[in-house]
Amino acid sequence: MPSHDSVQESAPVSRRSKITPEREQELYAAVLDLLRESGYESLTMEGVASRTRCGKSTLYRQWGSKPELVVAALHGTRRMSLSHIDTGTLAGDLHRAARSIGEGSGRDTPLMHALSHAALQNPELLCALREALILPEIAAIDAMVRRGVERGEIAADNPAAAYVAAQLLGVMRARPLLEGRYADEAYLTRFVANAILPGLGLRAPLPES
Amino acid sequence: MPSHDSVQESAPVSRRSKITPEREQELYAAVLDLLRESGYESLTMEGVASRTRCGKSTLYRQWGSKPELVVAALHGTRRMSLSHIDTGTLAGDLHRAARSIGEGSGRDTPLMHALSHAALQNPELLCALREALILPEIAAIDAMVRRGVERGEIAADNPAAAYVAAQLLGVMRARPLLEGRYADEAYLTRFVANAILPGLGLRAPLPES
Repeated sequence: MPSHDSVQESAPVSRRSKITPEREQELYAAVLDLLRESGYESLTMEGVASRTRCGKSTLYRQWGSKPELVVAALHGTRRMSLSHIDTGTLAGDLHRAARSIGEGSGRDTPLMHALSHAALQNPELLCALREALILPEIAAIDAMVRRGVERGEIAADNPAAAYVAAQLLGVMRARPLLEGRYADEAYLTRFVANAILPGLGLRAPLPES
Repeated sequence: MPSHDSVQESAPVSRRSKITPEREQELYAAVLDLLRESGYESLTMEGVASRTRCGKSTLYRQWGSKPELVVAALHGTRRMSLSHIDTGTLAGDLHRAARSIGEGSGRDTPLMHALSHAALQNPELLCALREALILPEIAAIDAMVRRGVERGEIAADNPAAAYVAAQLLGVMRARPLLEGRYADEAYLTRFVANAILPGLGLRAPLPES
């Protein structure tokens, strides 16, 4: 194993020879914690080094730069996933999704708030944020809707179907600003029952299951 | 007029003797522009002074600190308002609201993204953000819903009614992250027609007007 490490500087995700997977997860978790606490602009490689007792030179050697480290941390840590949910009805799936999103919102909402402004000005960061936090959830919710169509619960051209993901992720972000509280499980469950399902023409919480 | 200005330091909004209202609006507009461009953490009194060609000592004398200046800028600049909308039907009002929010979203969405993370950690800033950007819109939307109830368009206990404001403000914030584009007039108009109105049980865009 070579001790110089100038090779493949443009592929910061590879070549973690000196860092164990466990240590990598610790580092990524610390990066996300620092982001939640102070936002993207305030995050520094010095701060990460100090929090993780990792040498700054190691951070730069392995990840190259702050945006690359943040992108790697987003990709490298698995958070809640909706993709395993499959209750057999659309209403049941959306209620489970509301619970799952609500459980994670104290963790993920600050992270999205911390990153979203920076991401709108940094295409690479936006891309990583979308891939790590947003697109998997959208895909899972869209799959729930598609199964609901296949089971005949809603029509294929139901006009509200395209907005379910935006509604769920939207109120998750809006509630802290509107009411000063995270969109928790109880709020999202009520929101699904009282707004999303009626919008889809599904009034009962668990229809014909 | 006294040349010393230590009086009323705790009331930064008053005593603008040296600054004309026009100049004040210019300063506030520059503060909001800088916030949109670089976020709250990166905003400095030096940056504001440089952008506005205003002495840093004047900024400190008049506003005391960065959070106070940002709060004053949020309060001191009027942006879009939904409160004048009154078309005679709830569907009509919500469509007008969608247009108005969509027109302003290129201006207000970056500002909310820039401030929301800092606001969740700074109660005074959250309060100002809520008062300046959020509560007026919520109040206006709630008034539309209330008039709809009074006219008998929806029942007083319509379960989706409580979520109209959160949905509109939510998708406005979610779309840039979901689709990489602001929630413009066309998107919000479709969202009102296809998700919010059906959720309220109002299928036609302009019922019994």
